[in-house]
Amino acid sequence: MKIAVIGAGNVGSRLAKLFILAGHEITIGSREQEKAIAIAAQLGETVKGAKYADAVASADVIIVTTPWANNTTLDVVQELGDLTGKIVIDCTNPLAPDYMSNTLGYTTSSAEEIAKLIPGVPVVKAFNTIFAEVMEPGKQIFDGQKATGFYCGDDAAAKAIAAKLIEDAGFEPVDAGVLQNARYLEPMAQLNIQIAYGLGGGTNVAFRYMRR
Amino acid sequence: MKIAVIGAGNVGSRLAKLFILAGHEITIGSREQEKAIAIAAQLGETVKGAKYADAVASADVIIVTTPWANNTTLDVVQELGDLTGKIVIDCTNPLAPDYMSNTLGYTTSSAEEIAKLIPGVPVVKAFNTIFAEVMEPGKQIFDGQKATGFYCGDDAAAKAIAAKLIEDAGFEPVDAGVLQNARYLEPMAQLNIQIAYGLGGGTNVAFRYMRR
Repeated sequence: MKIAVIGAGNVGSRLAKLFILAGHEITIGSREQEKAIAIAAQLGETVKGAKYADAVASADVIIVTTPWANNTTLDVVQELGDLTGKIVIDCTNPLAPDYMSNTLGYTTSSAEEIAKLIPGVPVVKAFNTIFAEVMEPGKQIFDGQKATGFYCGDDAAAKAIAAKLIEDAGFEPVDAGVLQNARYLEPMAQLNIQIAYGLGGGTNVAFRYMRR
Repeated sequence: MKIAVIGAGNVGSRLAKLFILAGHEITIGSREQEKAIAIAAQLGETVKGAKYADAVASADVIIVTTPWANNTTLDVVQELGDLTGKIVIDCTNPLAPDYMSNTLGYTTSSAEEIAKLIPGVPVVKAFNTIFAEVMEPGKQIFDGQKATGFYCGDDAAAKAIAAKLIEDAGFEPVDAGVLQNARYLEPMAQLNIQIAYGLGGGTNVAFRYMRR
């Protein structure tokens, strides 16, 4: 698949590397072309860098990994340009600047706020409950058990693509229902942050949804 | 420990059985003494049944497992009488009558609403992310991995007791911080319900917090 990764922080850069290993074509999108090219060069020879509009134009899937605070993600999504025919995978969490609380929840979610900006474009929430630290080859597995990649959305075809990408990234996809269920996945990510940072447990941890 | 189990539905009756196996003394509390005695008799010879006030008076730990809808839990907590010197473990979720949504969240939680009614009495949130189906001997373990029992609260001594009871019930306790973090544990329980009931995955499932 041709994937545009928007936001090349901890999560974006590691997901990009995992997707490259799985054989996907990656373009890093940034506001400035030079910055995008510089980041892409650090991630690997085959990674391209481009301004938002160009990165998006050549991609089937847009992976949004930008920070939430200061309206960053919502501003960026509006800058991406026409997304008709593509799917958006939202990896964000609506974190306060210090990460230690969510700035919205219960009646909405960052996934739903993004979807409102791009009507008609399928949005899937995914990867938001997984720490960047475990988005590394081999680190997705704890004691023989894969970390779970929960995902939710309203478009079945887009969800199937997200599930494939979760699997390609080394995680076990678990369908969490409709996009509105991001209202449960985003608090779960904050729980992860509370234990890892608030209580000092660290980020080398992951949730697993165990089934029999 | 002397434990009063308030509410003898799926969760209360199974936790009672697990605590009995771990050697604790259980009293089932109900509004009507006869009903309490009848339920207790079904759970085992050593289980007592008593009206709320009597069940609570003889207990160190009060386990609240009543339904949330129609204000049931909050009404019951107010009926329990003086809880000074005891600790309350809140296993509830603020579920709508059909279970498929939470009736509160983000700015509060059922745990915090309970705590407001009993100032000075330590409240610990626990067991709310675990389905009753896996509260059975042997079912706490999936493929050699224990299901996690997240707990949170503001009183360290009460949390230590809750952690011990989670362990005694066969789960792996994971400290999730302050009581306010029930705002993240309750949505996680709803996520579990969405996957199990909404998507038909069933309740023979559990979350595990994996660490390295």
